[in-house]
Amino acid sequence: MGALASFTCGAHGAKGGMGLELSAAYPGDVSIGYLDGENTLNLLPLFGDAQGSEAERYVEGAEGTTGKMRVLQDIKREYLWATDRISGPGVTFEIFTPTFSIPNPETATPTELAFASCPVVHASVTFKNTTDAPIRGIFALGIDHRWSSLGDRTNETIVGAMSQDQVGFATDTEGASCWMDFDPISAMNRKHSTPEFLLGPTAGLEIEVLPGEEKTIEITLGFFKAGSATYNRSMSYYYTQHFTNLSQVLEYGIASREDFMELVQFRDKELAAANLNDEQKFLIAHATRSYYGSTQWLWDGTKSVWVVNEGEYLMMNTFDLTVDMLFFEMRFNPWTVRNELEQFVDRYSFYDKVFDPKDPDTLYPGGISFTHDMGVMNHWSPAGRSSYEVGGLDRACFSHMTCEQLTNWVLCAGVYLAYTNDEDFLRRYRQTLIECFRSLQNRDNPDPAKRDGIMSFESSRTEGGGEITTYDSLDHSLGQSRRNIYLGGKMWASYVILEDLFQQSGLDDLSSEAQAAAKLAADTLTAGYDDTLGFIPAVLEEGNESAIIPAIEALAYPHVIGLTAATDSDGPYGEYIKTLKKHFKHVIDTRMCLYEDGGWKLSSSADNSWMSKIGLCQFVAREVLGFEFGEDQLKADTAHARWEREGSKLSACSDQFHSGIAKGSLYYPRIVTNILWLDEQK
Amino acid sequence: MGALASFTCGAHGAKGGMGLELSAAYPGDVSIGYLDGENTLNLLPLFGDAQGSEAERYVEGAEGTTGKMRVLQDIKREYLWATDRISGPGVTFEIFTPTFSIPNPETATPTELAFASCPVVHASVTFKNTTDAPIRGIFALGIDHRWSSLGDRTNETIVGAMSQDQVGFATDTEGASCWMDFDPISAMNRKHSTPEFLLGPTAGLEIEVLPGEEKTIEITLGFFKAGSATYNRSMSYYYTQHFTNLSQVLEYGIASREDFMELVQFRDKELAAANLNDEQKFLIAHATRSYYGSTQWLWDGTKSVWVVNEGEYLMMNTFDLTVDMLFFEMRFNPWTVRNELEQFVDRYSFYDKVFDPKDPDTLYPGGISFTHDMGVMNHWSPAGRSSYEVGGLDRACFSHMTCEQLTNWVLCAGVYLAYTNDEDFLRRYRQTLIECFRSLQNRDNPDPAKRDGIMSFESSRTEGGGEITTYDSLDHSLGQSRRNIYLGGKMWASYVILEDLFQQSGLDDLSSEAQAAAKLAADTLTAGYDDTLGFIPAVLEEGNESAIIPAIEALAYPHVIGLTAATDSDGPYGEYIKTLKKHFKHVIDTRMCLYEDGGWKLSSSADNSWMSKIGLCQFVAREVLGFEFGEDQLKADTAHARWEREGSKLSACSDQFHSGIAKGSLYYPRIVTNILWLDEQK
Repeated sequence: MGALASFTCGAHGAKGGMGLELSAAYPGDVSIGYLDGENTLNLLPLFGDAQGSEAERYVEGAEGTTGKMRVLQDIKREYLWATDRISGPGVTFEIFTPTFSIPNPETATPTELAFASCPVVHASVTFKNTTDAPIRGIFALGIDHRWSSLGDRTNETIVGAMSQDQVGFATDTEGASCWMDFDPISAMNRKHSTPEFLLGPTAGLEIEVLPGEEKTIEITLGFFKAGSATYNRSMSYYYTQHFTNLSQVLEYGIASREDFMELVQFRDKELAAANLNDEQKFLIAHATRSYYGSTQWLWDGTKSVWVVNEGEYLMMNTFDLTVDMLFFEMRFNPWTVRNELEQFVDRYSFYDKVFDPKDPDTLYPGGISFTHDMGVMNHWSPAGRSSYEVGGLDRACFSHMTCEQLTNWVLCAGVYLAYTNDEDFLRRYRQTLIECFRSLQNRDNPDPAKRDGIMSFESSRTEGGGEITTYDSLDHSLGQSRRNIYLGGKMWASYVILEDLFQQSGLDDLSSEAQAAAKLAADTLTAGYDDTLGFIPAVLEEGNESAIIPAIEALAYPHVIGLTAATDSDGPYGEYIKTLKKHFKHVIDTRMCLYEDGGWKLSSSADNSWMSKIGLCQFVAREVLGFEFGEDQLKADTAHARWEREGSKLSACSDQFHSGIAKGSLYYPRIVTNILWLDEQK
Repeated sequence: MGALASFTCGAHGAKGGMGLELSAAYPGDVSIGYLDGENTLNLLPLFGDAQGSEAERYVEGAEGTTGKMRVLQDIKREYLWATDRISGPGVTFEIFTPTFSIPNPETATPTELAFASCPVVHASVTFKNTTDAPIRGIFALGIDHRWSSLGDRTNETIVGAMSQDQVGFATDTEGASCWMDFDPISAMNRKHSTPEFLLGPTAGLEIEVLPGEEKTIEITLGFFKAGSATYNRSMSYYYTQHFTNLSQVLEYGIASREDFMELVQFRDKELAAANLNDEQKFLIAHATRSYYGSTQWLWDGTKSVWVVNEGEYLMMNTFDLTVDMLFFEMRFNPWTVRNELEQFVDRYSFYDKVFDPKDPDTLYPGGISFTHDMGVMNHWSPAGRSSYEVGGLDRACFSHMTCEQLTNWVLCAGVYLAYTNDEDFLRRYRQTLIECFRSLQNRDNPDPAKRDGIMSFESSRTEGGGEITTYDSLDHSLGQSRRNIYLGGKMWASYVILEDLFQQSGLDDLSSEAQAAAKLAADTLTAGYDDTLGFIPAVLEEGNESAIIPAIEALAYPHVIGLTAATDSDGPYGEYIKTLKKHFKHVIDTRMCLYEDGGWKLSSSADNSWMSKIGLCQFVAREVLGFEFGEDQLKADTAHARWEREGSKLSACSDQFHSGIAKGSLYYPRIVTNILWLDEQK
């Protein structure tokens, strides 16, 4: 957690391995299996040329070494919250990723912080020898570099290998030994007598298993990046505060394995016991790994800095992802939310002007807002600038997301404050909240008399263009910001939250004003309902007729905060809520927003559906709006799980799907919106 | 020099770019050219999909941006010692690599050392606008990462871009500006208004050139790797002693450009004036770049450590390359030779036993020798071990090279001492030389009575196997060590040198003994001559009938030292020299050791000829043995140059060629043996 490191494998016949700061699975070979008594190497299909056939075949290793190989068949996989178990005949490989709360680094003890930051993944391989000859069980990684033996770096019970002092693995299992060679075929059919052949890009662990025996190698995989890890603003990984090098990480990981495994058990049981179907549990388990693989817990010299990288794109703290991952972070690591919010205020906020798209040259007061992201691939952007946003584009990908990011700060702050009662935060950022309120209003209309609660004015940062929402790769139904009912919903939710926060702060006038703004927004959105269409069109201008599920998305915020009146059909925004129910019922019942396989289609006019937002909107539909889907629930969950398992099989957990195939936003952290399912009452 | 960094480009339609610690050209796109008045981007063919057609075509950039592009035709290239000039209609790109002597870091001033270690390559692009509309000249690099603007890191006259604080480029040319975008097509047909679009993997410089104008952008390319750069033994790049980061390197590079350019002029003129044909000059210029691209000048905390990496294989200080690059290093940087020799003694020497291959179990005293290399890909091997050598192999690739590396230490030390008169070195290592002598003799035969001067006993490190020579990928004609006349020649040369060094040291008995050993070797090799064959067969056992050019290779060492009597037909080894002349004349005259195209074939029985060894043996044949080749000289040189230019066009300068096509030992430093051609008297 926080190491921006991954050990990815599992797809049959695909590359995988350990890597740092990657935008995809490491393209190496994971070789796990055993050399049987007939000198055939039996391997799980976790490497690039693992063919489907179960036939034993002769394989050529590097430099002409040949040997027999068989790809094991009948592979089973159990994918629990913290245990990933891949098993074939005679061999079981387990990967343990014990997700747990990272303690607040400002208050936790060094012992707690070392444990939480330790950049390791635990694994084990169990070999069961049912033959009458000894077998040699192996675990090996092939990489695009070279290895060194752990040698005498660690205590003498440990063997293992490291590459570039950055990735490595070790075991203290008795009887295990370490080797390096070109590849497993060369190693298992070694013509020479030097186990650690340092020229080879493959390193492995090996253990002999006698007939009738079952043996387990317990493996710790470690990562390390020393020194400054980011550019323009120099920061190191937080774990470097507690560990000085990779061998120390491996040694610590091995020594504390039992503590890690207790957490594995706890987390596995927790999800298993949840009142969810297996597909839902799979999606939560999958999303959790992909989130943590993208996280970067940094140290700037005086304090922790939390960064979530944007999956394959590696943009840093993309704010429209932060707001979606908020629920997950609040459950496990609330301090990271405050951390992100403070970073946005301190360095990635700005003040702009706004304009009416009909008259781009006349600028009006805008206000504070926040950048789309903080940089890309460890390159921090200059203050006040994202890596993503450029000027001069009219509602096209890479335009500014100024209004949406403004709502995102308010929504995150509101949820953070509701969960934590962090009075210090509220005191420090009260003025920011007021500025956000004014800025939101100006993006509706700088003229108070002309406001209707949702966005109509564009940021001057677009230089005469038009803003977009997070849904940048969809059509205008979700991609255009102004007059959009998705973003309108987030403005409404922001006003609802501001009303509450201002009231808590004794700012009664502002609270009333925020309430009025929320009402205005709700009324406008309600009035947008089109009887003929049977739903609220996505964009309240120019005859748009797209139907979108995320019209309901923003109800999540007041709901999780406990502002239940706001989402009550009989509450102050009752008409709005009732209208959203009608809207949602229609777009589902008519299957406008469903795929053939029962999966959710966010927009009727775009074949591009995002798993993170589906998870969020499912929560809202069920938990806030009270929908029940009967058999269609499992059908949808099965479809979504299949999208990930098959449509994204080479990219771990992905977000964007075109008809069930992942395209874009691969290897992505955002899908943890589905953590909300664990909070559902029904 | 010493930065293990490269900027490689030139092959048409191939990838290229800047990179650190690479085993091949960086796989990016180099975009150099101009946007003409009709918005067509005219580019030199230095990027991956540069097609041969000169037709203007529409090209799609990332994210749907389209523009017109034309690949410039009629490209010319001048490839001088320090200037590489690639020109097409309207644009000339020059890369400057000012090779010069690196001063001895123990005695030079910080100013000299900063200049010598500064990790920059200079370049310039000249645009000539012969049209009647303004054009926009560009230089851009596309990489697999992201860029930051130099911004205000340097003085305000400088613009440029950096990635990961590791590679970057900058200019202070007036009127130049910097941009970032997905690719040049997107940048030149920008739909947005943000020149520095930080999400893009391409950064460029741009300058406007008005009709009739000619303008040059002067560009400095800089490299930097901070902190520890090597593993197992932590060392940093030497330049980090003088520069703290990349922007400082770029600024210094720009400020000292004139000084660099003076050296460029000097070096270009020096080679141009040499009494060599153009093909030979090309080969020297090409080899020089490839050597320096492989060099690593490190700092271990108290002293400089010189490493030459083995081209694509990145093995560190492979000793059988060191001995070939010796002549180049002695000419430019003699301190690096002492540095390497000391590293081998201090950490990569060992003592073994030897055995008769007929009785592998009986071990006899061996003696000191040295490992094949010191590690691979920045991973230092454990003391006394190479990354390459493994036990248990009988004269196969990756076996030990113990006897050959022993000769290599003696030969390097002898040449170093002869050129430098470094009395301190001789005093310190006199005992090592004596040990080397005894060790050489034991590899002949531990029983003095049975010695015949050449190797017959194998190292115990082979564990019953058999040693190989540097020619590891050839057949036994050159690959087998024992009884090999190539290695026999190196043993003879070692004894000749030891005789001289012992004499200088007043060790007369040892000197006489060494002389006797040399005589024994010369006699054995002479006696190996087979009248029927017309040459000395490559291996003096088991009826071998291969003819090899490198029988003459080792004459180079006594010759360059000035031990001219040793290589004189009328000298103490006159019969040996005369026999080698007969041998060589035969294998050339019969074309046994020539390819169809006139290129040299090192062994009659292997289609695998090494450019480094060809260059060395050409020197010996001409300068030591007095051969003249008439028209065949240019024919051979033309063939060899074509092998590099066409047969190795994607791999810069390579060593191993199979019928003119580079296969293995690509991107290699060793070809600088051809520096010896500059010393030829005729």
